[in-house]
Amino acid sequence: MNHSMQAFLKAVGTPWPVVQAPMAGSQGSALALAVCAAGGVGSLAAATLSADALQQELSVLAKQAQGPWNVNFFCHNPPPDDPVREKAWLDALRPLADRLGVSLPAGRAVASRSPFSRELLDLIRPYRPPVVSFHFGLPRPELVGAIKAWGGQVWSSATTVDEARWLEQRGVDVVIAQGLEAGGHRGMFLTTDVTTQTSLLALLPQVVRAVRIPVLAAGGIAHEAGVQAALALGAAGVQVGTAYLLCPEAQTHPLHRAALASDRARHTALTNVFTGRPARGIVNRAMRELGDGATCLSARAPAFPLAGWAMAGLRSAAEAAGLDDCSPLWAGQAAPLCEPATAAELTQRLGRAAHAATPSNA
Amino acid sequence: MNHSMQAFLKAVGTPWPVVQAPMAGSQGSALALAVCAAGGVGSLAAATLSADALQQELSVLAKQAQGPWNVNFFCHNPPPDDPVREKAWLDALRPLADRLGVSLPAGRAVASRSPFSRELLDLIRPYRPPVVSFHFGLPRPELVGAIKAWGGQVWSSATTVDEARWLEQRGVDVVIAQGLEAGGHRGMFLTTDVTTQTSLLALLPQVVRAVRIPVLAAGGIAHEAGVQAALALGAAGVQVGTAYLLCPEAQTHPLHRAALASDRARHTALTNVFTGRPARGIVNRAMRELGDGATCLSARAPAFPLAGWAMAGLRSAAEAAGLDDCSPLWAGQAAPLCEPATAAELTQRLGRAAHAATPSNA
Repeated sequence: MNHSMQAFLKAVGTPWPVVQAPMAGSQGSALALAVCAAGGVGSLAAATLSADALQQELSVLAKQAQGPWNVNFFCHNPPPDDPVREKAWLDALRPLADRLGVSLPAGRAVASRSPFSRELLDLIRPYRPPVVSFHFGLPRPELVGAIKAWGGQVWSSATTVDEARWLEQRGVDVVIAQGLEAGGHRGMFLTTDVTTQTSLLALLPQVVRAVRIPVLAAGGIAHEAGVQAALALGAAGVQVGTAYLLCPEAQTHPLHRAALASDRARHTALTNVFTGRPARGIVNRAMRELGDGATCLSARAPAFPLAGWAMAGLRSAAEAAGLDDCSPLWAGQAAPLCEPATAAELTQRLGRAAHAATPSNA
Repeated sequence: MNHSMQAFLKAVGTPWPVVQAPMAGSQGSALALAVCAAGGVGSLAAATLSADALQQELSVLAKQAQGPWNVNFFCHNPPPDDPVREKAWLDALRPLADRLGVSLPAGRAVASRSPFSRELLDLIRPYRPPVVSFHFGLPRPELVGAIKAWGGQVWSSATTVDEARWLEQRGVDVVIAQGLEAGGHRGMFLTTDVTTQTSLLALLPQVVRAVRIPVLAAGGIAHEAGVQAALALGAAGVQVGTAYLLCPEAQTHPLHRAALASDRARHTALTNVFTGRPARGIVNRAMRELGDGATCLSARAPAFPLAGWAMAGLRSAAEAAGLDDCSPLWAGQAAPLCEPATAAELTQRLGRAAHAATPSNA
């Protein structure tokens, strides 16, 4: 156990330095509770939940969670109005829609995800989440301060050294170094240039050198050896997503689950065609057909989260036909290393590996 | 020390499981000799050497190297004739050329790098290199067999699990798992799709599971913690490039050396604008201006190695003016973790870290 891991365990109050990554749309309180009961930090992804659903889930966690738990929010800036781009995106989607026999929606795009706000702060306050984590930076300072005022920890993701320093300067308790391997959305917020995004092996030691707060490693960690590699690189602990998608406690869509368990999981890519922001998923038809050149990124996609509006109908129609052509199959590069397990088994396996690692720094 | 590392050290006959990566254009026998003398495996990059220069370097290595050494060749297929693409590339380069005040060359592109061949086999045979390594696959089976006939080991790079299996099936002694972090050319040869390229954290454990031969880890390893992470992931040893570029024994161009030591080294990207194949370097003007969309890759670049022909004059003119705008500044993502050291210091530092690692598997 290294000093950084000791400091993290003490500050958070959990036996294992293992955090289940929040995964919007694929999990709820059931997964988080199972992880907490096994000695890790379970997370609830709030981004796509209605206010009612969020209150319901928070109520369950506040009552039943053993040990610390985390609720996660996006904190993007709502996009500028851009009807021309929305129209161009509908045109880009038309061939896919025609093949599926569905109509594209009319009118203006609707945001499927809202950023953290004063209203959401007031909603979560009664439940006093022990940890509130953010993706895409941080909300306004007074909102961060309000969380700290009830004793909550504030965590956020960094994809570059600059982002890690920025977060530390604004009082974050723990920074999550998100390697390029990670599934789902890149947490990048000081840049939109995807070539700045580096793998965990390069990013993590640089972030550990740059900040004094504990650093969690995220991206590409799915099994014991990955945990030990992350700790060797200076991590205080790990945040693991994809491996938890295969747990029975997750609400992973059956088509998503099947793709994760197949050879297709060996090929993931960054794409913005599902939401407007780069995120890593298993390559599928929508990613291939809408991506520019040799990439799965499209310069035509509307800004986050508006790109997802028109895609939703295509996704539903395709899924009803048993196709994952238009589904975001979020997965990290280590998806082929995942093995089916319960959340308790996975948490304990990764936790034991962490405790066994780096004895020379004990 | 894990079993795989023990097997590697025994088969190769070297004290440290540390291989200096061959780096065409930036090093010769001097760097390789220094690495060998310190207990690692020094490498000579033959790709850009004339026959005379190659013989000269091999003669030095055969006489003076302490312990095993390696000579590395490219084994790409010479590109098809494509005058239209060559012409389009000259058009793409014109704005850069105009700004530098140089003329673009006339006539047809000339290959700056030749693949391994029967002639090169005959040239190296008298020196009996203990290791011959290849990039971009393998040469014809009879050439591989001829190297093995004199007791030489044959190594090659894999960037995917499929490539690793392909190499093992063809008798390779050691496979080098090249993570996406690596500087210089991607060794990819069964695919041209850069989205298939994964980071070492994801690639290495999959390759270790897929093959029975020793696996060296390459990409993103520049300091002790990187070595220990690679060994935790199952590597038998490491191949390190960028860190050796800063050694006094390397012939790294002063502009390249300055870029590596600057904050610019934090931003590398894959580019094909210097040779026609994707390779990782510090982002510079040519990469930015010639890359398509948000990438540093151009669909217009002629096939490897022909893209380099017209760029050579631009590079010379820019370098004469003290600019690295048109120079390939090859570097891995871990460049910011490199610290200046002699080749002996670096080799011993990394080697000691390897021996200290993974005691639980001893």
